[in-house]
Amino acid sequence: MKAKGQAVDIKIDAEEMAAYLDEVFPQVRGMFGIDRLDKDLLVMRLHADDRHLRPGGTVSGPAMFSLADVAAYVATMAFVGKQALAVTTHCSIDFMRKPEAGKDLLAEAKVLKLGRALSVTDVLLFSEGSDKPVAHASLTYSIPPARG
Amino acid sequence: MKAKGQAVDIKIDAEEMAAYLDEVFPQVRGMFGIDRLDKDLLVMRLHADDRHLRPGGTVSGPAMFSLADVAAYVATMAFVGKQALAVTTHCSIDFMRKPEAGKDLLAEAKVLKLGRALSVTDVLLFSEGSDKPVAHASLTYSIPPARG
Amino acid sequence: MKAKGQAVDIKIDAEEMAAYLDEVFPQVRGMFGIDRLDKDLLVMRLHADDRHLRPGGTVSGPAMFSLADVAAYVATMAFVGKQALAVTTHCSIDFMRKPEAGKDLLAEAKVLKLGRALSVTDVLLFSEGSDKPVAHASLTYSIPPARG
Amino acid sequence: MKAKGQAVDIKIDAEEMAAYLDEVFPQVRGMFGIDRLDKDLLVMRLHADDRHLRPGGTVSGPAMFSLADVAAYVATMAFVGKQALAVTTHCSIDFMRKPEAGKDLLAEAKVLKLGRALSVTDVLLFSEGSDKPVAHASLTYSIPPARG
Repeated sequence: MKAKGQAVDIKIDAEEMAAYLDEVFPQVRGMFGIDRLDKDLLVMRLHADDRHLRPGGTVSGPAMFSLADVAAYVATMAFVGKQALAVTTHCSIDFMRKPEAGKDLLAEAKVLKLGRALSVTDVLLFSEGSDKPVAHASLTYSIPPARG
Repeated sequence: MKAKGQAVDIKIDAEEMAAYLDEVFPQVRGMFGIDRLDKDLLVMRLHADDRHLRPGGTVSGPAMFSLADVAAYVATMAFVGKQALAVTTHCSIDFMRKPEAGKDLLAEAKVLKLGRALSVTDVLLFSEGSDKPVAHASLTYSIPPARG
Repeated sequence: MKAKGQAVDIKIDAEEMAAYLDEVFPQVRGMFGIDRLDKDLLVMRLHADDRHLRPGGTVSGPAMFSLADVAAYVATMAFVGKQALAVTTHCSIDFMRKPEAGKDLLAEAKVLKLGRALSVTDVLLFSEGSDKPVAHASLTYSIPPARG
Repeated sequence: MKAKGQAVDIKIDAEEMAAYLDEVFPQVRGMFGIDRLDKDLLVMRLHADDRHLRPGGTVSGPAMFSLADVAAYVATMAFVGKQALAVTTHCSIDFMRKPEAGKDLLAEAKVLKLGRALSVTDVLLFSEGSDKPVAHASLTYSIPPARG
């Protein structure tokens, strides 16, 4: 998840991040998992769950958006530290293939820019076991100034 | 909701559309309402509901995405007729202001292009009672060929 | 061009803005015109010109992007005052119809959000004389702090 | 430039593609170069040129859009063959850093989806010699049916 060309390291590891997500987003507790979180890569998982299904049995667009959004949040927070009030200001997402029915959805997230006030994160979504991306997103987070 | 410069009229009215949404998206039954649906405007409503809240008590980004997505779907279906398998291929969304806590979220949707295979819909989201948009989205739907 | 729900008025009129554009973007002098600039609407014009044509005789995608970009810049500057170093941070653009050959391209721009650090502007592009939009864009400008 | 998970190979090599671009886009002859074109990667170059500069001496947004657009076109054409009338239907672009003055701009393009009617291409832009991306874009091309 290391931003290409940036030397920064992460401040929060996977275990601490999972606990933090449960604390700030209790309404989605159990929905997402963190498979990997280091400075080179974030991999998040959306557990297959009937609540998110569309006609045809695949993961819905809103559930894919949610996964991309939380992955960009986690990827950014890992570098800047806990900022519960960081907010998404933009998302562009291309839905390219139908996710496979009954499979978890995985997000691979990379921070492309980490500025003082904004981050830009690239996210690719895959059905578990496939290397063809089902969706591709770019998300911008506005990062509030840290309180001393 | 009439596409500017297009003479087409809607094929499905609000009541029929509401019943159709319950049928094809049973998992979100009761989440959305249709305030207005005619050839000039679609107004959809996301009922304020604790499930969709973020830290701070406002509607979450994914819930705003869901409202924009379903509004674009309904706006498109109103013109082309029932196509349950139409799929979102792209969404760009700017989150511009914090929605007001405890208020329903309203979507105003206009179809900008209605092609044979694709539609493009512009959606503005407002907290009920405010005229400052909280989000602005453009969504593309891929429309499968009608079956004879 | 008044942002819906915002009471602010413009600080720069069409004549002054045209002179300012010539000053800060001399390389595109003569390429664009301002048909209307008041707090309710900005209309900009891209003069039909062989330099911007694609195979088939229509305005190219990059020329449409340029028009949307300069319109968002002008719409924002009109409210915030001259900020030559404001920069585009994001653009999403849907190309929906083929522009008409030999016609000027018109942009209608509305500022949807005017924050301290960012503006978001909605732009619709039309071939002159048609009311069917050829493209639809949303642009974000980063506004540097004014120097005292 | 191979789409991840796709076995297809390119149909047009760099030399043939350069000649083809000169033929179909004579108005931008000499503006772009192809550094590399194989099934694993496309690298295109925008030659530094005063025509594309903004205040401050850097490459303009429209010039960056042009490079991303032509790179997505070339990446797609390399796989599908010559289709001069393929058109861009969507572009989302994040401008993340100021390009370096006096440097060529390089685009790395990867086709994420190659469907019958649409392609989706991811493009990262860099100033030559830097590994920090200046912009990130996703472009959709509509591919007309091949004529027999």
